[in-house]
Amino acid sequence: MRDRPTAASTRFELLAQELEQQIAAGVLRAGDRLPSVRQTCASRGLSPSTVFQAYYLLESRGLVRAAPRSGYFVTARADGVLLSEPKTSEPQSGSQPVEVNDLIYACLGAARARDIVPFGSAFPSPVLFPLDRLRRALVSSTRRLEPWSMVEDLPPGNLRLKREIAKLYLRQGMNVATDEIVLTHGAMEALNLCLNAVTRPGDAVVVESPTFYMALQALQRLGLRAIEVPTHCREGIDLGRLAQVIELYRPNACWLMTSFQNPLGSLMPEAKKRDLVELLARHDVPLIEDDVYSELYEGPAAPLPAKAYDRRGLVLHCSSFSKCLAPGYRVGWAAPGRLAREVERLKLMTSLSGSIPVQAALAEYLQEGGYDRHLRGLRQSLLTQRNSLFDAVNRHFPDGTRVVRPAGGYFVWVELPVGVDAMALHRAALAQHISLAPGPMFSARAEFQHHIRLTCGQLWDEALERAMRTLARLVDDAVRAVAAEPASV
Amino acid sequence: MRDRPTAASTRFELLAQELEQQIAAGVLRAGDRLPSVRQTCASRGLSPSTVFQAYYLLESRGLVRAAPRSGYFVTARADGVLLSEPKTSEPQSGSQPVEVNDLIYACLGAARARDIVPFGSAFPSPVLFPLDRLRRALVSSTRRLEPWSMVEDLPPGNLRLKREIAKLYLRQGMNVATDEIVLTHGAMEALNLCLNAVTRPGDAVVVESPTFYMALQALQRLGLRAIEVPTHCREGIDLGRLAQVIELYRPNACWLMTSFQNPLGSLMPEAKKRDLVELLARHDVPLIEDDVYSELYEGPAAPLPAKAYDRRGLVLHCSSFSKCLAPGYRVGWAAPGRLAREVERLKLMTSLSGSIPVQAALAEYLQEGGYDRHLRGLRQSLLTQRNSLFDAVNRHFPDGTRVVRPAGGYFVWVELPVGVDAMALHRAALAQHISLAPGPMFSARAEFQHHIRLTCGQLWDEALERAMRTLARLVDDAVRAVAAEPASV
Repeated sequence: MRDRPTAASTRFELLAQELEQQIAAGVLRAGDRLPSVRQTCASRGLSPSTVFQAYYLLESRGLVRAAPRSGYFVTARADGVLLSEPKTSEPQSGSQPVEVNDLIYACLGAARARDIVPFGSAFPSPVLFPLDRLRRALVSSTRRLEPWSMVEDLPPGNLRLKREIAKLYLRQGMNVATDEIVLTHGAMEALNLCLNAVTRPGDAVVVESPTFYMALQALQRLGLRAIEVPTHCREGIDLGRLAQVIELYRPNACWLMTSFQNPLGSLMPEAKKRDLVELLARHDVPLIEDDVYSELYEGPAAPLPAKAYDRRGLVLHCSSFSKCLAPGYRVGWAAPGRLAREVERLKLMTSLSGSIPVQAALAEYLQEGGYDRHLRGLRQSLLTQRNSLFDAVNRHFPDGTRVVRPAGGYFVWVELPVGVDAMALHRAALAQHISLAPGPMFSARAEFQHHIRLTCGQLWDEALERAMRTLARLVDDAVRAVAAEPASV
Repeated sequence: MRDRPTAASTRFELLAQELEQQIAAGVLRAGDRLPSVRQTCASRGLSPSTVFQAYYLLESRGLVRAAPRSGYFVTARADGVLLSEPKTSEPQSGSQPVEVNDLIYACLGAARARDIVPFGSAFPSPVLFPLDRLRRALVSSTRRLEPWSMVEDLPPGNLRLKREIAKLYLRQGMNVATDEIVLTHGAMEALNLCLNAVTRPGDAVVVESPTFYMALQALQRLGLRAIEVPTHCREGIDLGRLAQVIELYRPNACWLMTSFQNPLGSLMPEAKKRDLVELLARHDVPLIEDDVYSELYEGPAAPLPAKAYDRRGLVLHCSSFSKCLAPGYRVGWAAPGRLAREVERLKLMTSLSGSIPVQAALAEYLQEGGYDRHLRGLRQSLLTQRNSLFDAVNRHFPDGTRVVRPAGGYFVWVELPVGVDAMALHRAALAQHISLAPGPMFSARAEFQHHIRLTCGQLWDEALERAMRTLARLVDDAVRAVAAEPASV
């Protein structure tokens, strides 16, 4: 084990530590099944919950993974040691105008063709979604749609859908009024409208480093400056650095992905989210919270968004159904706190209204009550896919690679061995019909030149495993080429 | 006849002049049926096309109107004299920042409730649209929709739909490449993206006076300055004044509605459109052409847009299906000429993509081939409704009112008698459950305080006729109140 604290005090931690040692010693090897929970309870006289906690801990450390209905398996590399986590970025300080290059468009375009293994895609496989049931909802809801609603629902949007969204918040114990919700064309429009509502051209906006490229594009479009703040691969943005940046540069807004950040997969712990909201409230800085992945969690419940801790209406929470229910329908929303009316007006000015039939269809689907069952299946699939991709990186990629197992979503962030260029790898991979998202897409300064984002949105199969081996071989080649180069003068 | 030239030279003009004199002399009175085309051919030894031309001319002057399958009827007022046309505006010169007030939102909100007579609405009645057939297209197209298209069609949008739109252009003899077309959430998004593509904050943009309030909102949102140019109630923007404005202020773009302008209903003659395109090309000024009403024409064929005369890719043509086929679906497009790639990127940055199911449904509907039949019926209904509203204004409104019969669309622009305040009338009408769009909505400087826009989007019935009488009575009251006021000091 590299970089791993070993102090243990409770029963489950002791059990986890013991299993970890067996893995490190090669007693348990990659692919081995851990003893079942029942066996371990019996053999050690522990309660099931203690054993589960130990297994969860090992899983959170990437040492084992759960396979649906068959138990826990060791994921470690052949040498019994997992790859380390990526290091936290050290972006240059200061704000700067955003000039996104053609890279993003080129990469997005390359990831779309059907004969390409889509490790560079931003979307999970459509087969993971209940498209048939959605279609039936579309049929029955439009049959009952009154002609007048085609006109009346323009501007405010489908009221039933707003109520269903308010109920989704309520389920998390959050009280968001139906009329705070502004329906939009996907989260992307919601985020853009919120950004528009809280900034003027030339303003500075805090983003994570690395950050979602669409955030950079939105900043560029509105003539805003980006302040990139170091972001930890598991715990999200560095609050200490954020506090400094606020003092130094007085940013006009933050745009953060607090749960399962794209591309890192980081999940801010809830206490940290609360601290974030308090820090921003002290300085009156609005938070645009991009929260499209939170339904794709592991464990017992969805992580609360920062919005849950907002007492001042300063958090503009944006989400959509595109990643968890209905890709292609383009239905999202903002819950913009005290700026709700302003965002609603911007929506009216920008694109007037959402599409009435698809809004009605989603309202109907949500009311019918199959959403939870669908989400359980989707989460289980994505868990398996995340594990498979993470395992494959560990199995195949050379030493010096760094990777972290994300606790949700479908992106895996990989730091390549020193000297391996992500753009060159991107080109070499495309020649082998494999897409990936090179790190420079995720920075206003084209940083992360040795990083890639891999998408595990597909049902894992031998073709994907083979593509991972090919990718690993390309990385190997690059490592060897670097080693063979004469030292630079 | 007021304000009407009488020189006539050709046969049809002579016939028209003669009938006009009979109307003026009270021989033919309001509601009288003109002799049928067959009768007139026989009695005067003229060809049917000459008689039709004469009747069209009278119709274009507002003196007669066609009733479906029953002939032409005299529309004149009781005194045999039509109200005059509204005068052309004289907006203040210079550019100025746009600060749209709450009026627009208040008026749009007021027009939506179902118990309000919607003379202020921006939408025609949904019963005029083939909602059932669209629903069937939605059902069958989504049944055949491949899951992968839910992901693949994001960004570029449904290719079949783009092809169908290219075919609509082709039908008019225009060659617009499929990949010039950028699918958007309604024309509103298309217009916003095009405006965004050709301007930077602080730039000046030429608009018509009066202008569509959404154009003003878009200018405000992007921090642009408006230059309002006088616009004739039948023939559109004044090209002489436009040329002066271009020399003086070097605007960065024009945003015009060349066919059936909202609110005037004006239709630029084709030669004028060609001159417009040439003028702008000489100064390298892009034209954003808002062309959502052109399918709602009278006569044998749709008017060509200015885009048809564009040789330099400087016309960014924007339209949608919202006004002619599928309100509430929110499917529109831009054909942005040489700025197509830039607009496409802005679309990607703003809202990523359109809704795949509704795009597929419209593609299917258009391919099935019922569109033309639907349009014929819609045009016929709207013609009757325009005539009915125009007649009602002539019948009921007091002298001093000015109105012009638009040759397409569903808006009628009314200049109220001197001293009658549109905002006061708006409030008084709302108290009677009648909405209207007061003139100040259509100007960056809240001009047009004595104008209103009336919408004839509903099937005409006794309730609408009664509402027009009520409205006329309110105008009468206001005229009397003005007359009773002591002269201002």
